[in-house]
Amino acid sequence: MMLAMLVNDPFAGTLALLALIWIAAKLGGEVAVRLGLPSVAGELTAGLGLAALREVLPGFPDVAGSHGADVLANLGVILLMFAVGLESTVAQMLKVGAASLRVAALGVVLPMGAGLLGAKFLLPTGTPFLVDLFIGACLCATSIGISVQVLRERGAARSAEGRVIVGAAVIDDVLGLLVLVMVSGLVAASEGGGLPWASLGRTLALALVFLVAALTLGRLATPRLFQLASRLRSEQLLLPLGLAFAFLLAWLSGLAGLAPIVGAYAAGLILEPAHVELLEEREAHSLESLLHPLVMVMAPVFFVLMGARVDVRALVEPSTLLFAGVLGVLGIAGKLVAGYGAGRGLRAPVVGWGMVPRGEVGLIFVAVGAQSMFQGAPLLSPGIQAGIVGAILLTTVAGPMALGRLLRREAPAGSPDRP
Amino acid sequence: MMLAMLVNDPFAGTLALLALIWIAAKLGGEVAVRLGLPSVAGELTAGLGLAALREVLPGFPDVAGSHGADVLANLGVILLMFAVGLESTVAQMLKVGAASLRVAALGVVLPMGAGLLGAKFLLPTGTPFLVDLFIGACLCATSIGISVQVLRERGAARSAEGRVIVGAAVIDDVLGLLVLVMVSGLVAASEGGGLPWASLGRTLALALVFLVAALTLGRLATPRLFQLASRLRSEQLLLPLGLAFAFLLAWLSGLAGLAPIVGAYAAGLILEPAHVELLEEREAHSLESLLHPLVMVMAPVFFVLMGARVDVRALVEPSTLLFAGVLGVLGIAGKLVAGYGAGRGLRAPVVGWGMVPRGEVGLIFVAVGAQSMFQGAPLLSPGIQAGIVGAILLTTVAGPMALGRLLRREAPAGSPDRP
Repeated sequence: MMLAMLVNDPFAGTLALLALIWIAAKLGGEVAVRLGLPSVAGELTAGLGLAALREVLPGFPDVAGSHGADVLANLGVILLMFAVGLESTVAQMLKVGAASLRVAALGVVLPMGAGLLGAKFLLPTGTPFLVDLFIGACLCATSIGISVQVLRERGAARSAEGRVIVGAAVIDDVLGLLVLVMVSGLVAASEGGGLPWASLGRTLALALVFLVAALTLGRLATPRLFQLASRLRSEQLLLPLGLAFAFLLAWLSGLAGLAPIVGAYAAGLILEPAHVELLEEREAHSLESLLHPLVMVMAPVFFVLMGARVDVRALVEPSTLLFAGVLGVLGIAGKLVAGYGAGRGLRAPVVGWGMVPRGEVGLIFVAVGAQSMFQGAPLLSPGIQAGIVGAILLTTVAGPMALGRLLRREAPAGSPDRP
Repeated sequence: MMLAMLVNDPFAGTLALLALIWIAAKLGGEVAVRLGLPSVAGELTAGLGLAALREVLPGFPDVAGSHGADVLANLGVILLMFAVGLESTVAQMLKVGAASLRVAALGVVLPMGAGLLGAKFLLPTGTPFLVDLFIGACLCATSIGISVQVLRERGAARSAEGRVIVGAAVIDDVLGLLVLVMVSGLVAASEGGGLPWASLGRTLALALVFLVAALTLGRLATPRLFQLASRLRSEQLLLPLGLAFAFLLAWLSGLAGLAPIVGAYAAGLILEPAHVELLEEREAHSLESLLHPLVMVMAPVFFVLMGARVDVRALVEPSTLLFAGVLGVLGIAGKLVAGYGAGRGLRAPVVGWGMVPRGEVGLIFVAVGAQSMFQGAPLLSPGIQAGIVGAILLTTVAGPMALGRLLRREAPAGSPDRP
């Protein structure tokens, strides 16, 4: 009935789904915490559980398909990265720049090579080299949100290893983008196009221009912008304007081809306490403390949805499981060895495990491979897709578990560095 | 290019829109504050300005059409009403129950009668009585979010008038629903159906069952639920679980045919500080202080979008403007007189102006009228629709302005009661 449709707010269903997500996140987190694991591992698993329930109970709500929850999830990871950026300065990040660059470069080359060789041995002979190469490429991504959450929970976000991990993830985003452009270009070239040198050059230039401009021009403009804002007489300016700044940089980084989280992180790096001092005094709250409840509410939605989006049914084939297991182990090994690129004085296993989760970034690679046509068929067959997704899942769940255990053992979290 | 589509996150555009909304909200709010008006009046006007800019500049972003901003706006008003509910208890609301009931009943009957008579005189003779009646019905709604924001800004949310206004708005939601069912039923009956007595009875029963069950069963269950939650070992439970509770009640109130904000407000009423004491101590923050940044970020999105959704072009016809002006004045007068229903010792103009904004609730009525068919045509013609929308707009902008001025004059805001 039309009347009922208009009166019964369709948004009400989104509210119920969000409540379900938070309850699932907290129950999953509780189990994880009691097992000594970081709560984000429990939230991911809770999401997987919701996906599995939907396979068993046909009427079960479709958490992964909710647009409203998707919006909060996307905002959650943006806000998380902004908060992490606020905990560091540009100078601190430049100090670990060389270590981050080594970890990122090794973390792209090693898993890609290992994945390529693994695919060559596991897949039937005659599989085109490009397929092996693309499988390797899917293993070079890093999903930094998960590790950041673990670092915060264990009070290690401001540690040298924490900074190297986040810095390497930013560089990894640029490198991953180049790999994707290159591999997709090779596919197109094999179908008759030219090699994608111009495209590669443009991609790299755009990403670098964004990063350099944000960290130089942005840093010059920010103090003036917020001083201007502190002349306004209205209340409650700090958080909305701080978010507007972070979201504009996130949008620009998207325009430059990078992930929006890179821009949000850069915004946090650029913003120093001194810039917002006047507003913080007037509102009697720091930007970080105002941001904290937003992250607390939205980040779990991101992690639960990441778990809930897994196609549980495609994973249970035995041959898929074997392929996924081997690829996953290779992907983990590649990033662990890359962790030694951090150099002396840093705990290589902490850095390596921090780079392990592939999460949604790896899934974007798979989606590109699934939609690329090669010799009249999708480059990645559905079976291969399911295998890579399984490997990504393995890295995504094992990463936070191992990182959480390592950080608890090596540096007991006496004072978690949450605001 | 497919690759660019996948790599360039489509969510980035939403981020830019949100930044635009916050900047517009703060600039509009600043102008309002300098004029001595509540900032929400400026935020509504900023939204109107964005809608007008889109008429002038064809490439201007479509703020009103953004699904992501819509999600935050919907959440914003839900969170606002939850926060207001937390500031009162069930007992305090029952104390003002009789006054609220009188204000709500008068506030439905008087504007409806005035609107009906106004329509009878302004519209050409021969216009069916049902059209006049429906126009009257559109004027009986109350959009409480705006007044609540003004009350909070002026430190009057916990005042007796503030409670009467919110209580009357809740009752008004029930009465408005009944009016809508009745008038739509009369339209259907005139087309050959029967009178909607059964439908009316069911609607009323469902709404009352929800309210009574929430305020009795909910109140019994809440302390136990949160005591259970405080046995969990995880951190950061208070806010996500508090929101899950509020969202579940909002969802249930939607199922009962009421607006979800009624359920969110009921959740706030039910939750007493004593219930969440253990969690608040452990997390060293009160639920209200954790909720505050979320409201601060999302409520302005609601107000800007409410302004941005106005069809500016339909309003500029001179005959529409006259019709809108007369209806708007009648609608305001009806609610102002209803304010005297509050009784002795209460400032009737404060209560009356608090009930004036019609906002999105009035627009739902218009949408129902636009989609109801009567004698082979929509019950409300496009011209009449534009006129009612104009009247609603007038009430929605004049309400917060007058309420803000009254509260500043009568009770200087020494200590705003924000958490």
